[in-house]
This record gives sequence, C-alpha cells and structure tokens, in this order.
Amino acid sequence: MERIVVLAGGIGGARFLRGLKSAVPDADVTVIGNTGDDIHLFGLKVCPDLDTVMYTLGGGINEEQGWGRAEESFAVKDELAAYGVGPEWFGLGDRDFATHIVRTQMLSAGYPLSAVTEALCARWQPGVTLLPMTDDRVETHVLIDTADLDESQRGEGGESRKAVHFQEYWVRLRASVDAHAVVPVGAESAKPAPGVLDAIADADVILFPPSNPVVSVGTILAVPGMREAIAEAGVPVVGLSPIVGDAPVHGMADKVLAAVGVESTAAAVAQHYGSGLLDGWLVDTVDAGSTQAVEDAGIRCRAVPLMMTGTDATAAMAREALALAEEVSA
Amino acid sequence: MERIVVLAGGIGGARFLRGLKSAVPDADVTVIGNTGDDIHLFGLKVCPDLDTVMYTLGGGINEEQGWGRAEESFAVKDELAAYGVGPEWFGLGDRDFATHIVRTQMLSAGYPLSAVTEALCARWQPGVTLLPMTDDRVETHVLIDTADLDESQRGEGGESRKAVHFQEYWVRLRASVDAHAVVPVGAESAKPAPGVLDAIADADVILFPPSNPVVSVGTILAVPGMREAIAEAGVPVVGLSPIVGDAPVHGMADKVLAAVGVESTAAAVAQHYGSGLLDGWLVDTVDAGSTQAVEDAGIRCRAVPLMMTGTDATAAMAREALALAEEVSA
Repeated sequence: MERIVVLAGGIGGARFLRGLKSAVPDADVTVIGNTGDDIHLFGLKVCPDLDTVMYTLGGGINEEQGWGRAEESFAVKDELAAYGVGPEWFGLGDRDFATHIVRTQMLSAGYPLSAVTEALCARWQPGVTLLPMTDDRVETHVLIDTADLDESQRGEGGESRKAVHFQEYWVRLRASVDAHAVVPVGAESAKPAPGVLDAIADADVILFPPSNPVVSVGTILAVPGMREAIAEAGVPVVGLSPIVGDAPVHGMADKVLAAVGVESTAAAVAQHYGSGLLDGWLVDTVDAGSTQAVEDAGIRCRAVPLMMTGTDATAAMAREALALAEEVSA
Repeated sequence: MERIVVLAGGIGGARFLRGLKSAVPDADVTVIGNTGDDIHLFGLKVCPDLDTVMYTLGGGINEEQGWGRAEESFAVKDELAAYGVGPEWFGLGDRDFATHIVRTQMLSAGYPLSAVTEALCARWQPGVTLLPMTDDRVETHVLIDTADLDESQRGEGGESRKAVHFQEYWVRLRASVDAHAVVPVGAESAKPAPGVLDAIADADVILFPPSNPVVSVGTILAVPGMREAIAEAGVPVVGLSPIVGDAPVHGMADKVLAAVGVESTAAAVAQHYGSGLLDGWLVDTVDAGSTQAVEDAGIRCRAVPLMMTGTDATAAMAREALALAEEVSA
C-alpha cells in the first residue's frame, strides 16, 4: 500500500488526509481534489477545496474554522464592501486573497490549474501530490425553488426554479432550502487533469475520505473517465462514511443527498456509490447495525470510530481504511 | 473662473488640487489625470496618479507618504512574497489592493477606465470630476544604460541600453541612473478619454499644478489632440513651477528633465512648455531672479511662495495662479 490515491473535497477530506499522512508518513499520496465548488469572486479564481487541502497539510489552516488561513485579517474585504462590491457573504481574508491573486495571475498567463496548484504547493509543501480533478472549468450549481426562500434571500425576478452556484447555496443560503438538483456544470466535457489517470492506474489503493458524496466525491466522479479509471485500476477502493448516526458529521450533506434521492444514512451512501465502485466501507460504531445492509450490497463493511476529533483519531481511521483495503484485496 | 481644468500627476497634483478646492470651493474642477505611470502588478491594473488624486481629495491618503492609503496593512504583500511572487519593490497595501481588485474586475467586464474611475470616485467623493487622460493603454518607459547600474540592480542579459517601466525607474531604481529617453509607449495612438476635450473646450482656465513636467503633465500632453485642444480653448493657461531653487520640490524631476534636454530650473521648465501653450507661470520667491527670462519667452511670470507646506499655503498658491490667469486674460 505504497501508493495511495484519495478523492478529496474540502474540510473532511483535508482532515482525513492529515490523519493519513500521520498514519503512513512514507506513503506516496496523490490527492485528486474537487474543483466543482471553485468560484470567481472579485475577478479572482477561488478554489476552496484545493486551498483547504493545501492550507491544512501545509500548516496554514484556520484550525477552528476548518477553512481559510490562520491569523487572518480582513482589510481587503472591508474595503470591497466600502466600494459596494460584493458578494459580502463569502469571507475572503487578506492572506487568502494573496493565494487567489497568484492563482489568477498564473491562469491569466496561460498556465493550467494543475500547474498553478503545483506552484502554490511549492510554498506549502503539503507532503502529497495535489492535483485538481480537471484543468477545465466545472462549477456545481444547485437548483432551488424560490418559493422556499424568505424575502431577504429572494432576489429580483419572478422565476420559481433557479440555479445558484454551489457556494451561494452552501455559504449564503446555508443549505436552508431544498436542493432539487445538483449539477456539475461543465463536467460532461471536462478532462481529468494531467497526472490524474496515471495516479489512479498506478495506485495500490484508492480512498474516499468522509467528504461529501454528492458535491465533493460525486463531482470528481462526474468527470468523464474518472469512474472507469477507478474501476479498471483493479485495486481496493475503500470509503469512509461522512454520515454518522443518520446526520452528516460536518456540513449539510443531507440536503444534497436528498437532491439525488439518497437517504442520509451511512448505508445509503455506500449503496449510492455502489459495489461497482466501492470494495470496502467504514461506518461509525453507532451505525454498526447497518453493516449488514452494506455487505448485502456487495461491499465489505466495518464499524469503527469515525469522529475526526484530532489527528490521532483520524490516523486510526486511516489505518482502519487501509486495513480494510488489505482485507478486500486478500 | 467657474470652470477649472487641471492636468495632474500624483502627489504634487493632488496636494495642489486640495489647495485649489480650499481656495475656490464652489468652482467646477475637472482633473485630467496622468495614466502613463499605470502598471500591471500581480495581474491587477494599478493607476498610481489617479488613486493619489482620489485618495487625497477623498480623505483616504497616507498624508506623510503622499501616496497609498492611511492606516494601511500589508498582509497580501507579505503573502505574495512568501509565494515568491514579485515585484517586492512596489509597496501595495491591503486597502489599496481592494481598489485595484475592483478596477481590474470592472475593466475585465468591459468598462473603460473612465467609467471605472467614476465608479471608484462614487465612494471617495473627491469633489472634482476625475478623468483619466485616456482610456487607452499608455505606459511611460525610460531608457537607461545598464552600465550605470550596480550589480544588484542589473538583471540577466547583456544589453547596454534597456527600456524599463517608469515605475521600475522611479520606485525600484529611485532614478539613481541617467534617463536617456522618456517614452510614453502607446500615447501616439491614444485618444483623449470621454469628457476630456469637452472639459477643455468649456474651461474658463487651465492649470498645470507643480507636477512633473515630463512624466506627468508631459505625458498628458503627449495624447494626440490634447495640446491642440488646450491651445484652441482660448482661455488662460497657467502653470506652477515644480522646481524651486534649481531642485525639484518633490521627486526626482531633474533626472527626467535631463532626458528631454531641459535644465532643472523654474525658467527652463516654463520655456520647455513654451508660450504656445502657457500664458502664465508662477515661480517661487527664491527664483524671483528668473521671472524676466520667462517673461522674455512670452510668458507672464510672477514669483510667489510655492512650497506646499499645508492646505493654507497651497490654497494661496492656487489663488495666485487664478489671479495670474485673470491678469493674462484681461
């Protein structure tokens, strides 16, 4: 299990990766990062999930918040607000702005996102190879019903169904209304970024951390060729449930799971991925009763503690995932 | 003298304008701002002279420094340096960055610089109409001799003559080497920005503040049609010498004056503008001996205190300039 590929979203993926690095410090880890929640703000390209992984593994993350930079200040944001330039609901700090300025400048100069990410990581030294899932533009949009919005949330215009950027749904609306569909716009014509398919083909094991199965791992899997490459790699694919005790550990995964018709349970998420993709699945000990349902779906399942309360607990989760991978490959 | 047009550079122009506003608060002042020292930094469009005027008249300037924002912080700059992204010699603060982010976003959306400047001024309320000299890209470059540079200043490559951006010459090299030529690249095909020619045609008086005669006022005059419009306006054109006692009051005007073959004296600058353009010229009292030479060149000349030591002193200078304008038009 020397070469490990991890499909990661933001906070959950990044914290899991820190545990994984702690559990197997010498492993060759390639992270395929979700870029579906990338957004252009103030003319700058913001890649929240890539940055969360980079900052977390590079020691620059705001630990309490789980995203953004530690010791952050907000002079730029305050000034933009003074100019009346929004959105104000996306809290970019000054240090974070610098990352987006460097990224945008490099993209404008013609470098693909994968090269830009490598350049940014030259500073952060995350100890993993961080690849965006694609160099092409993919933006997850969420279809909502404007009738569900309260007056302060509703904008101009009289449409009843409205597609909003994932960040608007997640950050501005705090997933307070139902998601009727989740669409990774642009995914159908996106190509995996350079290195992605090779890393999958060369992997000894592929892990799905407890990231959001719809808008994080699901978006990565929506890039044509990704799902097939994983299936064809012929190596154990093991995931960790982001749902513990019928509620998401972090975030509002239940809302977007409902949009794709999946119950918010550890077992339902495993069944959603399916035995064609997943070989093993870890559920939390409180969900031990659901292991049989997962096994019945053809996926090896174990119940272990899945709360990422610290690096030690998270490292233990990573060890359990690798142990399950050994088991299914035996 | 209701309608006043001022051709302004950065610090000197901005401080003079503050005095002018204090002297004639009800006057309708249009500022034609130099954009020749605009520069793209970190993928952002920076307009130092326009911003200095806007911040100074809008109450946001760093008074001591004369440029940049008051109460500034430098988190973004420090982070860019941590990424190894330069140049480090141009000290952009966090608050200032916000201005450049808003400007760049609007320019990318297709708005011309004049519209962007108007939008930025909606916040700052400078009390004047601030127009860029042109919406087209003009960048002043300075021709230097690399043999004049010391080792730390010299880059790669073996050229002997080298054109550097004005900001590199002024800020990085601090005008420490001779300027062999000053070229407003792009000026020959630039058009005056919307409103510029109308403001000149409608003016009752046109003032040249003690801004740099080569790289500030000179660059504005290099825009085709500008010089002709001023001459054809048929109204008094009065300037204030930026040279006092044979040395520039601020900055390093002597270096760029030498590049165009003009002595660093109050009289020589007046003669450089010439009687075809200038009707009146103010020199400092220490240069009272040079008034005759200016008068001999066909330009009405008075010696008055020209040190902008505060708003009162600067307002008095503005009153003297307007009085001289009345005199020449009588």
